[in-house]
Amino acid sequence: MPTDTVITAALLVIGDEILSGRTKDKNIGAIADHLTSIGIRLSEVRVVADDEADIVNAVNALRARYTYVFTTGGIGPTHDDITADSIAKAFSVPIGVDPRARALMQAACDARGVELTPARLRMARLPDGAQLVENAISVAPGFMIGNVIVMAGIPDIMRGMLESVTPRLQTGARMLSVTIPLNCPESQIADLFAAHQKRYPDVAMGSYPSLRDGKPATDLVLRSVDESRLEDARDNLKSALGV
Amino acid sequence: MPTDTVITAALLVIGDEILSGRTKDKNIGAIADHLTSIGIRLSEVRVVADDEADIVNAVNALRARYTYVFTTGGIGPTHDDITADSIAKAFSVPIGVDPRARALMQAACDARGVELTPARLRMARLPDGAQLVENAISVAPGFMIGNVIVMAGIPDIMRGMLESVTPRLQTGARMLSVTIPLNCPESQIADLFAAHQKRYPDVAMGSYPSLRDGKPATDLVLRSVDESRLEDARDNLKSALGV
Repeated sequence: MPTDTVITAALLVIGDEILSGRTKDKNIGAIADHLTSIGIRLSEVRVVADDEADIVNAVNALRARYTYVFTTGGIGPTHDDITADSIAKAFSVPIGVDPRARALMQAACDARGVELTPARLRMARLPDGAQLVENAISVAPGFMIGNVIVMAGIPDIMRGMLESVTPRLQTGARMLSVTIPLNCPESQIADLFAAHQKRYPDVAMGSYPSLRDGKPATDLVLRSVDESRLEDARDNLKSALGV
Repeated sequence: MPTDTVITAALLVIGDEILSGRTKDKNIGAIADHLTSIGIRLSEVRVVADDEADIVNAVNALRARYTYVFTTGGIGPTHDDITADSIAKAFSVPIGVDPRARALMQAACDARGVELTPARLRMARLPDGAQLVENAISVAPGFMIGNVIVMAGIPDIMRGMLESVTPRLQTGARMLSVTIPLNCPESQIADLFAAHQKRYPDVAMGSYPSLRDGKPATDLVLRSVDESRLEDARDNLKSALGV
């Protein structure tokens, strides 16, 4: 249920493949969009290697600071999938095969006429006290323990898990935003824009330069949880810019 | 010049727009690829908001731990561009208009017949002791101070700065990699793959699942700085897999 409280989150992307460049991350943007849309502020992202100490340290730093921590990656059946063990270590709890996860995976294996091998069963290992997060695509679940939500790295599976866990999350006021696109370099509007920010200290204002057809362009973005205040700031800025 | 020393790096992406989902980051993957190709190991990435304390804390944590820290974003002319000031604060040095940067920007403004306004001049402000990093596209330079390299957020400009600073960086042995693509789920090869990793503890082995046409597929990736050892591990793994 939405509240006026600010609900924050961090994302921890786990995986050598992102850091080596082999895999181009698509989860950061998708998770940022989703959290913004439901009223949770993504406040920090970290990408770390498949290294237990790095994962444990990051999880413990982030879960102490933010309302929620989401992780992606490292929950498969192979030896380099060390996320579940690392999370258990971060929470100082034992880890073992979870009977609920095992039952889900046994049923899926039975339906496909394949054996629930020890490798597959590795994906049913959860830290003690974890709640399952449904995986509608490939069954092996994600999980939530404390304020940490552990999801798969494959984007399609991650998105299903994110949708699945959403009803369990506390959410706050949605951050609304408006964009004023300009065909000029930032420097041309910088002074006016800074003055406008001073007039509306409660509306966050950012300027985002880009090259459009090789020419400098600028998007001014205004953000606030208060719709009327946002509209007022936008209208006054547009009128000051003459656009 | 390449050495046998392991050279590490962290990347700090600075910007509310990435965390809100408005802008989808393209720099992480590009920087990961580039650093891997020149023999620098990207070991951690963080994304933080346009918040001075967050930037200062991240820069100081990362520069103490890694050989280099690269940053992207927040060096434009508008009030929300606080990277240069935050870096100066992290290094506890003053910041002011740098005469070299000013001269470059004055020349560019003269050539275009425009004025070097105070807003434009804001982009010539550098922490004391910083060295310029050339910006071939839009002149306003990036900079390097200590082991921290500060670059623009616009991908085209960032890439130019990264190329420009590369000859100044110490690099190590290039991490080589080979990929064995398989049309089966990870769980099918997990035990064999774990045993193979034990046989070659000096070759990093990762398994990367994906969905190809909705069906589970797996890329096995082997990485090492030693080419003959890598080929040996690959050939033996392929033969064990019968592929």
